[in-house]
Amino acid sequence: MNKQIIFKKRPIGFPDETTWNLESNPIPELKEGEVLVQQHYISLDPAMRGWMNEGKSYIPPVGIDEVMRAGSIGKVIKANNHPTFKVGDSLTGWGGVQQYVATDGTGWFKVDTSIAPMPLFISTLGMPGMTAYFGIQEVGKIKEGDIVLVSGAAGAVGSVVGQISKIKGCTVIGIAGGKDKCDYLVNELGFDAAIDYKSEDIHKALKEKCPKGIDVFFDNVGGEILDAALSKLRMHARIVICGAISQYNNKVRVKGPSNYLSLLVNRATMQGMVVMDYAKDYGKAAQEMGMWIAQGKLKSKEDIFTGIENFQDTYARLFSGEKKGKLVLKVLEE
Amino acid sequence: MNKQIIFKKRPIGFPDETTWNLESNPIPELKEGEVLVQQHYISLDPAMRGWMNEGKSYIPPVGIDEVMRAGSIGKVIKANNHPTFKVGDSLTGWGGVQQYVATDGTGWFKVDTSIAPMPLFISTLGMPGMTAYFGIQEVGKIKEGDIVLVSGAAGAVGSVVGQISKIKGCTVIGIAGGKDKCDYLVNELGFDAAIDYKSEDIHKALKEKCPKGIDVFFDNVGGEILDAALSKLRMHARIVICGAISQYNNKVRVKGPSNYLSLLVNRATMQGMVVMDYAKDYGKAAQEMGMWIAQGKLKSKEDIFTGIENFQDTYARLFSGEKKGKLVLKVLEE
Repeated sequence: MNKQIIFKKRPIGFPDETTWNLESNPIPELKEGEVLVQQHYISLDPAMRGWMNEGKSYIPPVGIDEVMRAGSIGKVIKANNHPTFKVGDSLTGWGGVQQYVATDGTGWFKVDTSIAPMPLFISTLGMPGMTAYFGIQEVGKIKEGDIVLVSGAAGAVGSVVGQISKIKGCTVIGIAGGKDKCDYLVNELGFDAAIDYKSEDIHKALKEKCPKGIDVFFDNVGGEILDAALSKLRMHARIVICGAISQYNNKVRVKGPSNYLSLLVNRATMQGMVVMDYAKDYGKAAQEMGMWIAQGKLKSKEDIFTGIENFQDTYARLFSGEKKGKLVLKVLEE
Repeated sequence: MNKQIIFKKRPIGFPDETTWNLESNPIPELKEGEVLVQQHYISLDPAMRGWMNEGKSYIPPVGIDEVMRAGSIGKVIKANNHPTFKVGDSLTGWGGVQQYVATDGTGWFKVDTSIAPMPLFISTLGMPGMTAYFGIQEVGKIKEGDIVLVSGAAGAVGSVVGQISKIKGCTVIGIAGGKDKCDYLVNELGFDAAIDYKSEDIHKALKEKCPKGIDVFFDNVGGEILDAALSKLRMHARIVICGAISQYNNKVRVKGPSNYLSLLVNRATMQGMVVMDYAKDYGKAAQEMGMWIAQGKLKSKEDIFTGIENFQDTYARLFSGEKKGKLVLKVLEE
């Protein structure tokens, strides 16, 4: 049987036990030209919250009674005359929160799991890593000597943003929740400083830790943190809007940045990004990041939970912050 | 005597009778290398509100007991060995709200009043025109076929933004307050459509008048109008943050744009600008805009009030909207 998380009801605010159902359905039969992927790891990302909302966005919302959308990685266990993929191939794609998926291969990529463990391909060598790589370089336009601030800094995207900025010769300050995460940023990832938003006053901490202001702010969080960062911009600063995890479960309107007129005073730019736009360059990015990983310059941490039946609890950790690095759910043993 | 508007007290919210004093002081004596400018017209601009606030901004705040800052135009009536300016020259500069000013000429420019009337040099051929010219082209990056939305469209900056966009082959929609102003935009300035924010629901009106969305939004207003525009962005849209007149007199925090995550969904950019950054190219811009005026492609309207004693009432019209085009105060007859 194929255990699946089925999307049942659009949540208002935080998802609850009426949002999804765990179902067991037959493993799908293959049509001509399809492969059957046995999925091992599911990627859990804050963006999932947005996909559950109705309305125009960068991709259509997940439909009611559909399998919950998710990035994933697994192995081909059956093939019906597929032109390129064969049994034994490791593939990553949009497999959804389920144990088996039949696909004609559209949007799936073969990866070489001899060079890195499977979860890395949905982490630093997957979407979160790509988001960081293109966001901080193409939109943030970092250059040597820049002062870079990143929110959600201990997360899958933020930790890579900070490390790439260090590789490129920037001064990097990370914002994260809790002493453990802050220590991790400074002691293990080489950040210059960290701010614990749970115990520190963010405005005061920014004054202390970014006394010269900020050239680039990479924002995953929004809300008060975005406002505080806006108040510290240097001339011609760039703000990369990657996400706004503090606002995703709002039942009221999103909190807009009150200090946005700092963009005017400082001739600064706030720009949004969606990683899919850079798809044609993923290969090049994976190669460069793979090299950095091999050289020990880029560290990747995955926090792996087990069991598809634990999907909802694991999902909640995205927002409670009870995780370190990239949140992954193992749904079948390798 | 020299009548002057002296800045006495930083306002909270809207300025009142304690904000400024009208004083009569002796006409200043000239030092070596100075000229005495008899001022005729004072430029009234929404930016004045910002200059009265304490705190870091793009220029220092006006000091207490100083003459209120303002752009101006006048004539040299006395010179004490000035290297370039002589009696009879028409000059424009930062003369402040007063009738006479002594200066060594720093920041003043000679203008040729035989080609256009004096007030035009503090309007379309002055700061507001320059703001429009560089803002919509350098920051808004308009190109033929773009759909351009402009707020404060009947004002000194907005009216020029819209007309330049038309010259460059864009579709232009203006937002202004009242039927008269909206008629003026469409019938006299050639805008494709206008939205009266006082009588129309802005969201509904945008749906009707920009059914395909917006490529460029030039914002002078902020608040709900900025939020509404954000909800209509097309892919890779540009928002030029020129001002936020709706928020300048707030006693509470500025209303941040709740819909800023539209920047993410649409890979859009929000960028601030300050006209002073383009000073080296003012000459080129004045030449081109002068040509457009001569060709009848660019219309300039000045709303001229008379009497320095009416400064406070005239200033209030900046925010009440009781004016058409550029607001100017005549402080001495030509």
